[in-house]
Amino acid sequence: MFMYEQELHSLLKKLQQGELEVDDVYNKIKTLPYEDLGFAKLDHHRGLRDNFPEVIFCPGKSVAQIEEIFIRLAEQSANVLATRADEAVLQTIREKIPQVQYDPLARLLYLRRNSPPCPGQVAVITAGTADLPVAEEAALTLEIMGAEVTRIYDVGVAGIHRLFDKITLINACQAVIVVAGMEGALASVVGGLTSRPVIAVPTSVGYGASFNGLAPLLAMLNSCASGVAVVNIDNGFGAAAMALAILKARD
Amino acid sequence: MFMYEQELHSLLKKLQQGELEVDDVYNKIKTLPYEDLGFAKLDHHRGLRDNFPEVIFCPGKSVAQIEEIFIRLAEQSANVLATRADEAVLQTIREKIPQVQYDPLARLLYLRRNSPPCPGQVAVITAGTADLPVAEEAALTLEIMGAEVTRIYDVGVAGIHRLFDKITLINACQAVIVVAGMEGALASVVGGLTSRPVIAVPTSVGYGASFNGLAPLLAMLNSCASGVAVVNIDNGFGAAAMALAILKARD
Amino acid sequence: MFMYEQELHSLLKKLQQGELEVDDVYNKIKTLPYEDLGFAKLDHHRGLRDNFPEVIFCPGKSVAQIEEIFIRLAEQSANVLATRADEAVLQTIREKIPQVQYDPLARLLYLRRNSPPCPGQVAVITAGTADLPVAEEAALTLEIMGAEVTRIYDVGVAGIHRLFDKITLINACQAVIVVAGMEGALASVVGGLTSRPVIAVPTSVGYGASFNGLAPLLAMLNSCASGVAVVNIDNGFGAAAMALAILKARD
Amino acid sequence: MFMYEQELHSLLKKLQQGELEVDDVYNKIKTLPYEDLGFAKLDHHRGLRDNFPEVIFCPGKSVAQIEEIFIRLAEQSANVLATRADEAVLQTIREKIPQVQYDPLARLLYLRRNSPPCPGQVAVITAGTADLPVAEEAALTLEIMGAEVTRIYDVGVAGIHRLFDKITLINACQAVIVVAGMEGALASVVGGLTSRPVIAVPTSVGYGASFNGLAPLLAMLNSCASGVAVVNIDNGFGAAAMALAILKARD
Amino acid sequence: MFMYEQELHSLLKKLQQGELEVDDVYNKIKTLPYEDLGFAKLDHHRGLRDNFPEVIFCPGKSVAQIEEIFIRLAEQSANVLATRADEAVLQTIREKIPQVQYDPLARLLYLRRNSPPCPGQVAVITAGTADLPVAEEAALTLEIMGAEVTRIYDVGVAGIHRLFDKITLINACQAVIVVAGMEGALASVVGGLTSRPVIAVPTSVGYGASFNGLAPLLAMLNSCASGVAVVNIDNGFGAAAMALAILKARD
Amino acid sequence: MFMYEQELHSLLKKLQQGELEVDDVYNKIKTLPYEDLGFAKLDHHRGLRDNFPEVIFCPGKSVAQIEEIFIRLAEQSANVLATRADEAVLQTIREKIPQVQYDPLARLLYLRRNSPPCPGQVAVITAGTADLPVAEEAALTLEIMGAEVTRIYDVGVAGIHRLFDKITLINACQAVIVVAGMEGALASVVGGLTSRPVIAVPTSVGYGASFNGLAPLLAMLNSCASGVAVVNIDNGFGAAAMALAILKARD
Amino acid sequence: MFMYEQELHSLLKKLQQGELEVDDVYNKIKTLPYEDLGFAKLDHHRGLRDNFPEVIFCPGKSVAQIEEIFIRLAEQSANVLATRADEAVLQTIREKIPQVQYDPLARLLYLRRNSPPCPGQVAVITAGTADLPVAEEAALTLEIMGAEVTRIYDVGVAGIHRLFDKITLINACQAVIVVAGMEGALASVVGGLTSRPVIAVPTSVGYGASFNGLAPLLAMLNSCASGVAVVNIDNGFGAAAMALAILKARD
Amino acid sequence: MFMYEQELHSLLKKLQQGELEVDDVYNKIKTLPYEDLGFAKLDHHRGLRDNFPEVIFCPGKSVAQIEEIFIRLAEQSANVLATRADEAVLQTIREKIPQVQYDPLARLLYLRRNSPPCPGQVAVITAGTADLPVAEEAALTLEIMGAEVTRIYDVGVAGIHRLFDKITLINACQAVIVVAGMEGALASVVGGLTSRPVIAVPTSVGYGASFNGLAPLLAMLNSCASGVAVVNIDNGFGAAAMALAILKARD
Repeated sequence: MFMYEQELHSLLKKLQQGELEVDDVYNKIKTLPYEDLGFAKLDHHRGLRDNFPEVIFCPGKSVAQIEEIFIRLAEQSANVLATRADEAVLQTIREKIPQVQYDPLARLLYLRRNSPPCPGQVAVITAGTADLPVAEEAALTLEIMGAEVTRIYDVGVAGIHRLFDKITLINACQAVIVVAGMEGALASVVGGLTSRPVIAVPTSVGYGASFNGLAPLLAMLNSCASGVAVVNIDNGFGAAAMALAILKARD
Repeated sequence: MFMYEQELHSLLKKLQQGELEVDDVYNKIKTLPYEDLGFAKLDHHRGLRDNFPEVIFCPGKSVAQIEEIFIRLAEQSANVLATRADEAVLQTIREKIPQVQYDPLARLLYLRRNSPPCPGQVAVITAGTADLPVAEEAALTLEIMGAEVTRIYDVGVAGIHRLFDKITLINACQAVIVVAGMEGALASVVGGLTSRPVIAVPTSVGYGASFNGLAPLLAMLNSCASGVAVVNIDNGFGAAAMALAILKARD
Repeated sequence: MFMYEQELHSLLKKLQQGELEVDDVYNKIKTLPYEDLGFAKLDHHRGLRDNFPEVIFCPGKSVAQIEEIFIRLAEQSANVLATRADEAVLQTIREKIPQVQYDPLARLLYLRRNSPPCPGQVAVITAGTADLPVAEEAALTLEIMGAEVTRIYDVGVAGIHRLFDKITLINACQAVIVVAGMEGALASVVGGLTSRPVIAVPTSVGYGASFNGLAPLLAMLNSCASGVAVVNIDNGFGAAAMALAILKARD
Repeated sequence: MFMYEQELHSLLKKLQQGELEVDDVYNKIKTLPYEDLGFAKLDHHRGLRDNFPEVIFCPGKSVAQIEEIFIRLAEQSANVLATRADEAVLQTIREKIPQVQYDPLARLLYLRRNSPPCPGQVAVITAGTADLPVAEEAALTLEIMGAEVTRIYDVGVAGIHRLFDKITLINACQAVIVVAGMEGALASVVGGLTSRPVIAVPTSVGYGASFNGLAPLLAMLNSCASGVAVVNIDNGFGAAAMALAILKARD
Repeated sequence: MFMYEQELHSLLKKLQQGELEVDDVYNKIKTLPYEDLGFAKLDHHRGLRDNFPEVIFCPGKSVAQIEEIFIRLAEQSANVLATRADEAVLQTIREKIPQVQYDPLARLLYLRRNSPPCPGQVAVITAGTADLPVAEEAALTLEIMGAEVTRIYDVGVAGIHRLFDKITLINACQAVIVVAGMEGALASVVGGLTSRPVIAVPTSVGYGASFNGLAPLLAMLNSCASGVAVVNIDNGFGAAAMALAILKARD
Repeated sequence: MFMYEQELHSLLKKLQQGELEVDDVYNKIKTLPYEDLGFAKLDHHRGLRDNFPEVIFCPGKSVAQIEEIFIRLAEQSANVLATRADEAVLQTIREKIPQVQYDPLARLLYLRRNSPPCPGQVAVITAGTADLPVAEEAALTLEIMGAEVTRIYDVGVAGIHRLFDKITLINACQAVIVVAGMEGALASVVGGLTSRPVIAVPTSVGYGASFNGLAPLLAMLNSCASGVAVVNIDNGFGAAAMALAILKARD
Repeated sequence: MFMYEQELHSLLKKLQQGELEVDDVYNKIKTLPYEDLGFAKLDHHRGLRDNFPEVIFCPGKSVAQIEEIFIRLAEQSANVLATRADEAVLQTIREKIPQVQYDPLARLLYLRRNSPPCPGQVAVITAGTADLPVAEEAALTLEIMGAEVTRIYDVGVAGIHRLFDKITLINACQAVIVVAGMEGALASVVGGLTSRPVIAVPTSVGYGASFNGLAPLLAMLNSCASGVAVVNIDNGFGAAAMALAILKARD
Repeated sequence: MFMYEQELHSLLKKLQQGELEVDDVYNKIKTLPYEDLGFAKLDHHRGLRDNFPEVIFCPGKSVAQIEEIFIRLAEQSANVLATRADEAVLQTIREKIPQVQYDPLARLLYLRRNSPPCPGQVAVITAGTADLPVAEEAALTLEIMGAEVTRIYDVGVAGIHRLFDKITLINACQAVIVVAGMEGALASVVGGLTSRPVIAVPTSVGYGASFNGLAPLLAMLNSCASGVAVVNIDNGFGAAAMALAILKARD
């Protein structure tokens, strides 16, 4: 039952008072808020329920499928976001929606027609330069969603002093995203230096025994610092989504 | 450099003005805020820097070591917390500090001499009854730290309707902890139903192919719902720490 | 929405016709069919929705918790089943419900007060004698639920001729459960010999490179024979549940 | 011994009565029902023993090998099926057998010259759009084999309400296939909502910690819902084969 | 069909000539050579087909089951062998069969009433003293089966010169078993020094990153020396069985 | 010390008798039998010590390196073998040594200028057609080394009757190689049917949960049939080397 | 606090004596020694603190980023090193800095404008020819840093006598690097023969069950020889860095 | 050939000059320097070749075996060391050798009758108190071998400032051992702060996703700091052995 209590109560009241017929009420209760494209079911109310309108994860979808989903979402929402998009998708959609924007480093394709109010500030920190694509996926997603971002890049623990004069900057944010490959130690170090919630993103950057990100994933899950939680390997978007949920939890 | 900017500035000022000697200032800058027991270095200022005073993780420590650390912390802080404690530790410490409390389900040993103000409300949700020890470790830690807890237990996806009349309760919280073993699907389902940040805790409950919690750990990391981040297997304390950081991020 | 269409329609009709009040209907729609024990939520309608009344998985639950759940279920259902139960639980519950039965090999504790009609025949096949506890968990569960069982034990592929004069027996069943440890090859061999659906159960029996059942689990998932699907390691109950669903799919 | 009892009895009878010679009987008993191509042994009687005529799994076979096997099977069977076929195979075989059909999404190449009677109805459900290739491999295989298919696509747990108005549709089927990547939670949720046997197919869709489908594989094996069994990662064909065995178990 | 060609031909001949009835022949063909105990099916002809009479693997079997199997096998075979047996089994069986013997290091329980002729010589080599239980399981099995054994113990690669004056001894054998834990390098070194077939047995001896024998298992499978094949972790019996098959391959 | 006893004794004798000088003897003892190319050290005496002249494993070596090693070996040995060679290597070497031969399925490049006597017969068995490249690497290696090979292909356990009329053929060999992917069950089945030593080769053929051959590797290591040992995934050459060692152990 | 004690003391002294202002001292203490490029923070003082100036690990960085970092480092340091560089990077940088050098086997790109004094001698040993790229990454790095290198290549344990006349050479070095794939046994053998510290580098060379270097990694970690430590798979640079630290520890 | 060049030359000279007989020289060359106990071969010359006299690793050995090995070593060497010893071994050996010493935290049993000269200084650093048993195994081994040890315990990255005033202490050592469980980040942080060689020891301390030390093991292997190498999980002895080899490399 996804209908809010008042709505249900009010519907039943109207039925009792003869303002609505049984079938009207029955259908309202049964009808669920999504649009069915056959191969996809678009969840237009997710913007209410969740912090995002439905976001398109492109891998495994054909360009035609992404195009159709993107256009339908654009008919219902001011802002649309597709992650892990490549240039071919950009070309196709730009013909239909010229205002669409694309960031090749973050691989985000997006339409931004209104500016949601800024809910707060998030620090996005990387251990190395090779972590940038994941960090930018997080940072740009946050900005599209209206948050402000403090980027602190290349402060890995091999030269940990580069981090220390950034602590005041970090503490000024309400949430912290740490993106690191190799041994992922930066998440623990940042977690030990700040009382802000730390969202750790392991990356698949590194030599063989990284096993495509398994090493920093396990390291971050085992962080000895408290206030650290972990999202999927290379999942900058997921980190941004968690950060936004944290920012909005302040409301 | 862990000294706050003002402190440093003020120290230098006093040196300039002759109120302090070079060696005083030098030592203040060099002296770091911990107490050295030899086998342990107690970080008494962590209460300022982090949301917790230093918490004692008991496994691998002898009863004598736990006792000594607990008593030293109790001399400096009103509240002390030890996790994964067993009854032997309780007996020993109670002789020295009679007000110490113990919860055998959560395996928490704690001293609570003042009540920090309540920073908010956290939902703690479990999939099954066997997840209770981990959930209680989280819930009781939160209560000791001054947060309010809404317990919603045994609402796993095998009977998912048990979850649906709890959605309003969940949305009333600022953070949500989901504790689940087996396939860990509850984290994704809750994540899809609420816009609150979800902290997922995999547990080691289940048949053989759970591989001691690996199955729900991977499932939770791969959650298709956004706004979900994961802590270590069976780590109720870690989830509570993350939730507290989120609550405090609202300040 | 877990209410059947007719129920909802009929409720709304009665509201329209003044036979029910708004609050009655509202509560009926919102009230979900489970009983809340605090630490557990009993799903008494599962017998309708699923093939089982709720079954108690004992590991990780205290004896007191199992006892309370068992007794509450026994108040609502004629038959109750607890898996992976040990003798301590038997002692406790027998004091309250003398008719309770226990099988030490299958580790099943159960109350059987009526006999559901027999829905069909299931073959339970093991590779070796050490697979018996898992096989008996499956076989006895099936019998408690009213199915007939054909036991074919110790016919592993090291002496594959032991299997061949059983083929007629196997084909006379509507579903086949194959329980095997070590390399788990028996599932593929049986799958190649029969057109019946084969439910494969890997067991944790074997030398070190079995890795507690990982070897037969992977082998069974990779079966080159078609019509084979796999349940969790040592999960005889899960295999029985799948077999019952298959038998009932014939209705 | 794969000969049916009556056949053997009748052969021996005829030998006794002088209707057959020793060598005829000897050869009939020894001659096994397959055709030997050297690099492959075609099992033409599998259609009797199993639910499928032998199906060609293309990976690792050369185009020439696939072609030869396909043509030989087409000489013996009305219907032939090759899975994981690519377009090059289609081109080659179409020159010899113009009626051959190909579905590029499902990657199935098939010849369908008669229509076996429809044995029942199977629901094929996906969590996301990226799971479609695997789902279509299952659905089209079922249709080629004569079953009816109810496709319910893109109802993953991030927006679980999309699933709920499909429950009546699902319960009208005799078997259910759930195709899901990422955390694979949909299998458990569907398993909890229906009493039909659920065949879960993990897919390799997802971020890094999916480890190419390991995450949903483990999750599905650990399903807390009963009546769920699992086939290999991305193995839509295997799920269809299991479903057909279930449908035929009703005879 | 496990009957030898001549047997079948001769049976059919006798039927044709009226020396046998149809049912006699039918039953002879259908009757398979094992004894059914219900929970076990004893394969008394394995001694012909394989190099061993059926051997009892004790783990997972109850003492009563082992006892019954042992006694039945002892009625049919001069020699009986049970592996991984503990002392409790010895006590029970000795009451019935006083000649039974037990080796506590190898954990073998056996009855040896005739001496099969010696088929050859096998070297059993260990890296360290902690590998002895596995090595003795192999060596004693070989001796019970009539082979001669050359024991070369504690010649691990940390002091590789201890191996070199044994090369003549090793080359005098027809098969070589190498038992090693930790990094398992000894198998490769021996394989590089001899042209004899080397059967490598990884053991679970070692520090944490041995992962219970995974390290030497993988190392032995990746041996850069040729003429090396591997059996299961700690499986001394399996190595002996392979060695016996090699010795008998000379006939 | 790799010098045979007699050689050493005779050298010392000659020194004592004044037939040799100290430095001659010293250098003979110290000089080891290999040729140093800088990037490679060719072990020309391996033909004596082992069953093969040194064999070139091509992956990771440049074409120029392979060429130089091949030509140097060809100067010392009548026969040379390179495994996992691609066509580029063939082109290069053929210019220098026109008699070189290449098999594209087995990926073997070889020079065969004399025919070593045939040491025996080896059965090479595959489960499916996709296992052929690995099987042919084994079979052709054996033939190059002078053994006879009985090829029995495509007799996997999904249609196990295809195997049964081959048992006499198999038992006529002195060693058996079983090549199988997917669940690898064929090794156990063959191992249960013959007393010959079985060398199992897992292949990387299969769906996702094969994990590139891990599934059949573990299955084969856990074979419940005795007389089975395992070599590396896809390592047809390694199986041939073990089989040759077994054949030669008969001398 | 990364400032040396004397510096701090002297700064405070000057403040006291009025030679410096509070803000000067404050900023000196706060200013940390790195250069910020935005996407990277260059740690120019690492040459003092560590044995290397900051080294560029190229994978995951764009050519433009590598170019910018290289040029900035070249402005500050006489010598610059980039690892895992490809030819495209060489082309770009050579246009700006013609003296840059490139080794295609080791994939090192470097600028060497002064020659640091030689700190000692390191043996770099490989098991096979395919290990050369990793070995050369180590050896050339050492030479760039001023160490002397003794290369001993292709002395794997399949022909272990090739190693024995190199022992004197090895013992003449102060550190030993052993590079090996497959089973990685060479590290243990070398470790058993020398008292020098052995740095083991597993490589990803080998058949399937190497699992991209996991097999030699685990083997080397489990070395039964003492004085062996391990770096990442294929990480020749890491081994060189450890060797340099060992050489410099002699100062 | 393990004889030193001069020894061999001198032996041959004496043979030539008639001072020795052929058999004397022959036996001297063939006789290898170890003592054979049957179940163990004691390598008394290891003290010359390696930095340790042979050290006894107790797990998997019986008390009687440990006793015999210990006593024999004590007859040949002034100092003897057994690792992972328990109190039962102590009791037994003390009866024979009263001077034997035992440390219950480090689990080392040792005889120390002379004091080897101190070869240098090693820092032993732990992340937490629970890492002490492993750290003490390393530290005490070093002290027994004559090195000096600087213990720096409980300086994990959750409170990283506890480490910073120890940097001068650390840099004063010639080698550094870092012992850490959980995420093992301390090794990277220390590696980034010092130019000394860092030997990292992962411990099995931590929550479930540590997987018994796999998490810190992988993290340490992936250290982004240079000059770090890793030994086995919980292997304090191995770290000490590597440190001693480094100290002695200075000679």
